[in-house]
Amino acid sequence: MNHFFNVKSLEEVMDLAKIFSQVGSENIDVVDAYSRILARDLVAPRDMPGFRRATMDGYAVKASSTFGASESNPAWLEIAGTILMGDIPDFELKAGQAAKISTGGMIPKGADSVVMVEHTDMVDDISVEIYKSVAPLQHVIDAKEDFTNQEIVLTKGTFIRPQEEGLAAGLGFSSIKVYKTPRVGIISTGDEIIPINQEPEPGKIRDINSYALSGFIREAHATPLLYGIVKDDPTLLKQTIEKALHETDMVLISGGSSVGTRDFTVDVLSALPDTKILVHGMSVSPGKPTILAKSGEKPVWGLPGQVVSAMVVLKIIVIPFLNRLMGYGKIDRTVRVPARLSRNVASAQGRRDFVRVLLEKDGDALVAKPVLGKSGLIRTMIHADGLLEIGDHVEGLEKDTMAQIILL
Amino acid sequence: MNHFFNVKSLEEVMDLAKIFSQVGSENIDVVDAYSRILARDLVAPRDMPGFRRATMDGYAVKASSTFGASESNPAWLEIAGTILMGDIPDFELKAGQAAKISTGGMIPKGADSVVMVEHTDMVDDISVEIYKSVAPLQHVIDAKEDFTNQEIVLTKGTFIRPQEEGLAAGLGFSSIKVYKTPRVGIISTGDEIIPINQEPEPGKIRDINSYALSGFIREAHATPLLYGIVKDDPTLLKQTIEKALHETDMVLISGGSSVGTRDFTVDVLSALPDTKILVHGMSVSPGKPTILAKSGEKPVWGLPGQVVSAMVVLKIIVIPFLNRLMGYGKIDRTVRVPARLSRNVASAQGRRDFVRVLLEKDGDALVAKPVLGKSGLIRTMIHADGLLEIGDHVEGLEKDTMAQIILL
Repeated sequence: MNHFFNVKSLEEVMDLAKIFSQVGSENIDVVDAYSRILARDLVAPRDMPGFRRATMDGYAVKASSTFGASESNPAWLEIAGTILMGDIPDFELKAGQAAKISTGGMIPKGADSVVMVEHTDMVDDISVEIYKSVAPLQHVIDAKEDFTNQEIVLTKGTFIRPQEEGLAAGLGFSSIKVYKTPRVGIISTGDEIIPINQEPEPGKIRDINSYALSGFIREAHATPLLYGIVKDDPTLLKQTIEKALHETDMVLISGGSSVGTRDFTVDVLSALPDTKILVHGMSVSPGKPTILAKSGEKPVWGLPGQVVSAMVVLKIIVIPFLNRLMGYGKIDRTVRVPARLSRNVASAQGRRDFVRVLLEKDGDALVAKPVLGKSGLIRTMIHADGLLEIGDHVEGLEKDTMAQIILL
Repeated sequence: MNHFFNVKSLEEVMDLAKIFSQVGSENIDVVDAYSRILARDLVAPRDMPGFRRATMDGYAVKASSTFGASESNPAWLEIAGTILMGDIPDFELKAGQAAKISTGGMIPKGADSVVMVEHTDMVDDISVEIYKSVAPLQHVIDAKEDFTNQEIVLTKGTFIRPQEEGLAAGLGFSSIKVYKTPRVGIISTGDEIIPINQEPEPGKIRDINSYALSGFIREAHATPLLYGIVKDDPTLLKQTIEKALHETDMVLISGGSSVGTRDFTVDVLSALPDTKILVHGMSVSPGKPTILAKSGEKPVWGLPGQVVSAMVVLKIIVIPFLNRLMGYGKIDRTVRVPARLSRNVASAQGRRDFVRVLLEKDGDALVAKPVLGKSGLIRTMIHADGLLEIGDHVEGLEKDTMAQIILL
């Protein structure tokens, strides 16, 4: 039994993420691609849009036919035809001619630009006045202008936002190769923890952690699997961890990492085959009693039982590891916004502090106000909009300091 | 046929959201609550935690027994017992006594605080030295300190983050009442649009919009339903809109709103029973040719066919309407981060401009660089990290101006 923490800094722990591998990949329907991660580069199989296309409603012209045109000196062009959406124009435009076209229509041969309808006046069925000159390629997209055949348009590891889903569809990828959605096993431990559908007697507390942690896993676009509550029994805990390791890609054990029980969790983890304890304590507050083990190829976390600490640890370090498993290149994907501190905030040297803050608008800027109340209160996480990170080597931050707040 | 836009400002359109009602509510399992919206206030059915609880590992004491204790002058206390997790201590602590306790353990009668184990030294089985005094209630959470019986802990309209899911579970709500997940029908129109699994001939383009719009709906935690591509045929469009209105809570029609075809969409919408055109054009760029109708109690949008415009309109106005349907109190939930402009950005007076920007780090601050390339190029949305909003009454923004960038 090791009663001494093998305490690591946040950076040292973060650095361990790279020893874990991505989960496997699968092909999915592009309509389900939002929030998934590309598992290989996407290469354009053709030029896009593939033909010269209008980006405005108006008249396709040779730009040179409009040079010098103005309100007082309009160019007078012959209407050579109307281009129907989706049709290939069956005529070639000559100097002095124009063709009616809508946004997205195909520019006819001979034309190189579009005059916006607002800058024209149809005189009769065969003639139009142009009040503004256009430059070649103005208000058109050229055949290869968006993407070129064989160009890498999206790289492996890209998070698929709506626009990436649209692009993949537009290039004809009905199905795309993405990383599988990791499954994360969640085990709650502690003799004081009871299922949420039971009424707690004094001394007992409902299993908040399984649900809060589950929420963070969903927020990170992975799938939580709850393994319920395990009483402080090494055999049962070992069985449950082994089952979870078998069925999921990462395991979270909450509770069992405070002084009273942490050796117990460490002992059980140490006794698992092919398992190594990598971290036994982080110089982070809250979150010091955090354990990280590598079992086979999978990360297993021993999280603080105290719910606020467990949530902070999830947000700042467990989710980056999950991002690694999911195939992200950049694993720290927390969104940070700058805000001015409303008052002095104390901190201890030699550890990273995360202080819960409210964000309030002050004109165009934000003010971060530390949330009042003891750090163990869940209400502090409910009231918080973000976390203020205070570095290892400072004793605190002064009022009016600008800080990058991690959004919660 | 009305050839004149009934052009509204962004604020005027946003203001129309309030004429629409929230979708209905349903009871769901709390483990599925992440990202849902509470449909009624959550009231604490009991005090939380319900008993006086340790927030540190150490010794439960009467604070007064430690007053004056220091490294050089420790207090010497008698160990009255050890408190097991989840148990009700069967003894009462007297002055001069201490009881071993772990984080989360129940404080025995007579004790009011906890000395951290780091500030103690166990002399033998029955005595412990205390090196630091504690104040009453230090390192404990009192029975009602987190939440009080009958207190409103979460209000109707709250987005359920991981911590709210945990809190609801901790209060014993196995099931909670949330707004239903709205379904959003997506219809693509235009003779030039072909299904994504077909190879486009010149003049044709694959249906990017259905997929990009679908992604935005998922991002907003609602459910997209794709109704495919409708050719420019009023009867078919009418039938498809009616089917979508029957099956979903909001309908998006992309394409068919540019000069060439917009009256066509408007005519079809106007001909629907109990349907009123509320907006026919917005003073927003991109996104001017946007249509909003109210059909029965449901919003129907005619979106620009140009994919970049459609995406911007989704982000800045359609999603806030969806938020309204979903039961949010505050409907504009775009996340904005301050950034410094890398160069002058021009804009037209009398309209709201949204310019795609890249965000680059510059020390602790961000720099927003306008994305190069014509506004119709999808690549501009792929390269963009955010949107720069430029007000109606300015002609542009100068280099180094600080702006609030909407994250994409």
